[in-house]
Amino acid sequence: MKTVLVTGAAGFIGRHCLPLLAGRGHAVHAVVRERRIPSLPGVEEHRADLLDPRQVTTLMEAVRPSHLLHLAWYTAPGRYPAALENVPWVAASLGVLQAFLHTGGRRAVMAGTCLEYGPEGGTCSEQTTPRAPTTLYGVCKHALQTILARAGTEAGISTAWGRVFFLYGPHEHPARLVPSVARSLLRGAEARCSPGDPVRDFLFVEDVAGAFAALLDSEVQGPVNIASGRPIAVKNMVQLLATLIGRPDLLRLGALPAAAGEPPRLVADVTRLGAELGWRPRFTLEGGLQRTVDWWRAVLAEEAHEPPNR
Amino acid sequence: MKTVLVTGAAGFIGRHCLPLLAGRGHAVHAVVRERRIPSLPGVEEHRADLLDPRQVTTLMEAVRPSHLLHLAWYTAPGRYPAALENVPWVAASLGVLQAFLHTGGRRAVMAGTCLEYGPEGGTCSEQTTPRAPTTLYGVCKHALQTILARAGTEAGISTAWGRVFFLYGPHEHPARLVPSVARSLLRGAEARCSPGDPVRDFLFVEDVAGAFAALLDSEVQGPVNIASGRPIAVKNMVQLLATLIGRPDLLRLGALPAAAGEPPRLVADVTRLGAELGWRPRFTLEGGLQRTVDWWRAVLAEEAHEPPNR
Repeated sequence: MKTVLVTGAAGFIGRHCLPLLAGRGHAVHAVVRERRIPSLPGVEEHRADLLDPRQVTTLMEAVRPSHLLHLAWYTAPGRYPAALENVPWVAASLGVLQAFLHTGGRRAVMAGTCLEYGPEGGTCSEQTTPRAPTTLYGVCKHALQTILARAGTEAGISTAWGRVFFLYGPHEHPARLVPSVARSLLRGAEARCSPGDPVRDFLFVEDVAGAFAALLDSEVQGPVNIASGRPIAVKNMVQLLATLIGRPDLLRLGALPAAAGEPPRLVADVTRLGAELGWRPRFTLEGGLQRTVDWWRAVLAEEAHEPPNR
Repeated sequence: MKTVLVTGAAGFIGRHCLPLLAGRGHAVHAVVRERRIPSLPGVEEHRADLLDPRQVTTLMEAVRPSHLLHLAWYTAPGRYPAALENVPWVAASLGVLQAFLHTGGRRAVMAGTCLEYGPEGGTCSEQTTPRAPTTLYGVCKHALQTILARAGTEAGISTAWGRVFFLYGPHEHPARLVPSVARSLLRGAEARCSPGDPVRDFLFVEDVAGAFAALLDSEVQGPVNIASGRPIAVKNMVQLLATLIGRPDLLRLGALPAAAGEPPRLVADVTRLGAELGWRPRFTLEGGLQRTVDWWRAVLAEEAHEPPNR
């Protein structure tokens, strides 16, 4: 049986990984800092601040994981690309890796980002597209990827790096695109958006989590794009979302200016994910958005029964 | 007056930087872990283990440096290129950077390596030569460089990166090339060497230190090769050394096999160092080697008067 330590377990991707990993028969140890996670069979919760090296050592010696899925990072919406908090998260991640090696870990998978690729975007391949990140977030993630790969080789462990593109689904931060549009439309309010011309790759969060679980269980090494392989213009994705909610009339594409400096196309070549890992998404875009809408509808219904300042 | 914190101050480069920085009128704070440094006017010694984040915080709050020269790293001869100790030194360096930013630092310079360039070597330019390090040491240093540059931009401080090529001089570890040859020949023993065909760039350590001091005092940003710009085959350098010692007869070039996988040429384009920083070496190769020989001769004379197992 594999003993899997999941960091960032209360995060957007992490919380969806827990039932999938437990369902694969692993002993799952979920690391959270503050937020609690729902009780799940086969999942043990651990509280630790990964920015404190002593807590990392204590945690790793208590769990002695064979497998590491390191998802924890600084993710404040809007702020995260340029935030200096990215720097200590590299250090924390290296501390996690070091403690994992020290306690006999065998395979480590960490989360990367499409922002590791260059500013031109395009259809990004792990092997051939230059890594030329322009954000501190992208720089820090990519720096960590290069160290993980080479340190893994020197230490004789297996490592992989899931390079996440765009995702959506239940538990996403309400300030981000899909939740903010969904919440507005579900309330019957206008959703003001940029024109939405850029083409992106969106993957439902449960599929992102599924890909990470499959990657952790495989022996595939190095960076692997985690994406749908089905590019779509942001405006078309948002229009589909509005249609599913039944309020396309409230969508205001172009009411906000386009973000400056965004590549017109930033999508994934998913050859490695499909051919090497043998993994395919379970959800279509429509299916994933429908589940997301249902979830937000339930959240809004619940919020309506609570005191407003809770 | 600049308040300069120098890490790795007892190291090969660091100890040569201290008098130069003090001579430029700076208040110099020299960080050492175990080894003591000689007492010098204008230089205050601090003991700290940079691998312990609490000690880094305490140190930085006590000194509150305006300028940081971060040279400390893991450098065990032979072991350092592949050693896992490179990983915590990235984390420690990020901790130093973070604490430096937190206490109001204005300019940070760190030490890089020619091993950040690709395995092909050649005449390496900071702007155009691909960075494709093949050693964990090179990977870790280069990862740190990318983070330093981008974090510096986001934090609004000035940063630079001195990419060191090959160096020699007083206080070099005796296991390394120049000391081992010099010590053998000065004792009248054979010096067994590889054929020495690779072409490298050697710079006298006092000049390396001088370049770092000049770089720290400048506003030049980003990576700068620190090298002589005068390539020489290793065998020719060693022959010059043997000639200066007066024992070319004891040099055995080719007695050891050539190291596998070494690029035939790994030398520096020093355009940035010369044109942008306006810095030139003070020592010729002959002059630097002569000082090195004189220093080792004095060390050997001293050792001869000490009990053999000291």
